[in-house]
Amino acid sequence: MVLQTEFAQIKGNDLYIDDVKATDLVKQYGSPLYVMSEGHIRKQFNTLKTKMIDKYENTLPLFASKSFSCKAIYKLAMEYGVGIDCVSAGEISVALKAGFDPKKIYFHGNNKLPSEIQYALENGVENFVIDNFYEIELVEEIASKLNVMVNGLVRITPGVYAGGHDYIRVGAKDTKFGFSSHDNTYLKAIKKVIDAPHINFDGIHCHVGSQIEEIQAYVLAMNKFVDIAYEIYDIFGIVINKLNAGGGFGIQYTASDHPLEFDDVVSTIMDIIYKGFDRRNMKRPMVLVEPGRYCVGNAGITLYTVGSYKYIRDIRDYISVDGGMTDNIRSSLYNAKYDAVIANKAGEKADHLVTVAGKNCESGDILIKDIMLQDPQPGDILAMFSTGAYHYSMSSNYNQLPKPAVVFTYQGHSKEVIRRQTFDDLVAYDVD
Amino acid sequence: MVLQTEFAQIKGNDLYIDDVKATDLVKQYGSPLYVMSEGHIRKQFNTLKTKMIDKYENTLPLFASKSFSCKAIYKLAMEYGVGIDCVSAGEISVALKAGFDPKKIYFHGNNKLPSEIQYALENGVENFVIDNFYEIELVEEIASKLNVMVNGLVRITPGVYAGGHDYIRVGAKDTKFGFSSHDNTYLKAIKKVIDAPHINFDGIHCHVGSQIEEIQAYVLAMNKFVDIAYEIYDIFGIVINKLNAGGGFGIQYTASDHPLEFDDVVSTIMDIIYKGFDRRNMKRPMVLVEPGRYCVGNAGITLYTVGSYKYIRDIRDYISVDGGMTDNIRSSLYNAKYDAVIANKAGEKADHLVTVAGKNCESGDILIKDIMLQDPQPGDILAMFSTGAYHYSMSSNYNQLPKPAVVFTYQGHSKEVIRRQTFDDLVAYDVD
Repeated sequence: MVLQTEFAQIKGNDLYIDDVKATDLVKQYGSPLYVMSEGHIRKQFNTLKTKMIDKYENTLPLFASKSFSCKAIYKLAMEYGVGIDCVSAGEISVALKAGFDPKKIYFHGNNKLPSEIQYALENGVENFVIDNFYEIELVEEIASKLNVMVNGLVRITPGVYAGGHDYIRVGAKDTKFGFSSHDNTYLKAIKKVIDAPHINFDGIHCHVGSQIEEIQAYVLAMNKFVDIAYEIYDIFGIVINKLNAGGGFGIQYTASDHPLEFDDVVSTIMDIIYKGFDRRNMKRPMVLVEPGRYCVGNAGITLYTVGSYKYIRDIRDYISVDGGMTDNIRSSLYNAKYDAVIANKAGEKADHLVTVAGKNCESGDILIKDIMLQDPQPGDILAMFSTGAYHYSMSSNYNQLPKPAVVFTYQGHSKEVIRRQTFDDLVAYDVD
Repeated sequence: MVLQTEFAQIKGNDLYIDDVKATDLVKQYGSPLYVMSEGHIRKQFNTLKTKMIDKYENTLPLFASKSFSCKAIYKLAMEYGVGIDCVSAGEISVALKAGFDPKKIYFHGNNKLPSEIQYALENGVENFVIDNFYEIELVEEIASKLNVMVNGLVRITPGVYAGGHDYIRVGAKDTKFGFSSHDNTYLKAIKKVIDAPHINFDGIHCHVGSQIEEIQAYVLAMNKFVDIAYEIYDIFGIVINKLNAGGGFGIQYTASDHPLEFDDVVSTIMDIIYKGFDRRNMKRPMVLVEPGRYCVGNAGITLYTVGSYKYIRDIRDYISVDGGMTDNIRSSLYNAKYDAVIANKAGEKADHLVTVAGKNCESGDILIKDIMLQDPQPGDILAMFSTGAYHYSMSSNYNQLPKPAVVFTYQGHSKEVIRRQTFDDLVAYDVD
């Protein structure tokens, strides 16, 4: 098992998460179960604090809500002084219900609805990452009506491609996000923001990609952004107040992933930005980043119960578990790879080559194709690692499968933070 | 627009669904909105009735729940004497809450959980499509404990590949579904079912594929199944009671789809089965089929409001709508193609080439790549066709977007059958 960490440990023949035996969690909360190591999440948030907030003045890492949004995670983020980015009024509403400071919320999205803009502004969210011209008009109109000021960060697509999968590139030219950098579109956008009476032009945002393993992608993008900051100064006479370098901080899904260290990325970013701004005697900007997956991805372990098996001679051995694409769409959507272990046989040799199928009635519902496991038998508990980001948040009720509970573990204890759905929940919205 | 039907009509400059103006539906129920033409669904269910139930004795088409599961659709299916297949206890629970006769429910799935088997049996569901050896043991054990009999249809993978996308083949050898036909595994399974005291060996099931456009796939599979029926008779002395030919009945998503007629498929199936059974003087079996997409796919039209737009010079013109992969995962999951129209400009010329992006914060969230539309402007209503199957049922709350309402239209009227989620619903399962 490559993903043994200080929070997920094998002791004897069993997997423990924050010193809680995995099989005990299933006994207590049922199966399948999303387990999130609160120990691991705290460690990650603490890294954001010590390696960015405490180390460099005027910085703010924003937890990317879309990776895992619920009240419990927002409460944890607050403890470490971390901000959040939200991509919808729904995410904002959940954060506010958790007591999150609206001033530390950055509102993202390629199509913010008028109702969402109004909701955000009425609830004190003032930082907008502005994505397109139509949004500038909408925000100005609604902010004017409400007589509030918005801080607008202009999202620029730097034309840098990074990240493994075609779906998770973002900085490229052909994208639905942001203002293009290749034909001065972004300068027209900045001018329009500067001219909007109820939007304070606050700086620029870029997002280089997801799960980035090459520091060079950040170097290229940040150098380009320093050039853009110069350009903005030269054209408009404005030193930008904030520079948001976006997300892309990777995690390890399998042994073949080699994510960058948060510390290294931040050091690289800060170094380029500070040197660039110092060179022209421009006041150093506030710097923001947006890690999501990095904070919660490796904290998550999904526990499944092994059910049926199927040995197709000369072809493949299948085992099926009690979840599937409903709780993990990434396997089928992105062909994502995962590591796993039989939690109650974790000390044994992984010498059985199997394919792990979900229970959804869909051929594509395969969670892991070809993995070596400890002799999997019905009733065994399969622990699938690195399922903390984009799993619960993307979950569905396909096949009318109730969504699993989410449990936090910490220092030998566990608590349910999201309860399991019941059959009654499946008809809660049906109108008779 | 290729998908104009008797239920979706353009009158003047507007799209009407069952004589209800699309834009009026958005005004009344909000946006985005899943609209289902009850007229179209009734037409399809009526085809199942007249072209199968009424035409051939001892037949039963089963609506495949997974395509669209809610109380309203089960109530409609009942009116036409149609049965259903369910792939989980959750689907069964919803059907039973709608008042569905458990005797007309067929329970599918590659990993039926012990709790699901118990739930089904306790609630009078007696028809199981048995998928694997472990299931035979489980069903026998639980049925024995409850002292009930199960009718077991043995699911055989015929080794026939059909359907366009790699994800939607099913009959192939390398599949998580059913018993393999290439090494007599299925004969061992049938023997085991025959020997199980609480399972009545009731017949066989195959599923050739999805969205099948070649009648030859059914011909090959049915001929193979007749051979298997002979083999079962020769080996075990049993004439099978039921033959379930599965699903695969296609619909038209775009002009390039050429689905088979239900009538033609059923005639072909019945002809091969009856001739084959008559030839050996075997009593003709009850014949079942499992259309899902066919019943509801083309009934569904998703109405979106157009929001932001982005014209990237020399690259691509994007428009964004207020939904996305949360309400339609098929575009990103299966690269599925759709046809669409601007509902309030439906009479105008479609002369604008655009790409329709969703509002989810995900690069892959593109609903339609390159489509000709009537000059789309913010506030216009985009009607996307053929979204009745595998849309609501696969929907998620990613990005904390509330799920849209589902509205049925019929003969000039509309009614909400599933209400829209609210922000409060997004934290309904959070534990404080």
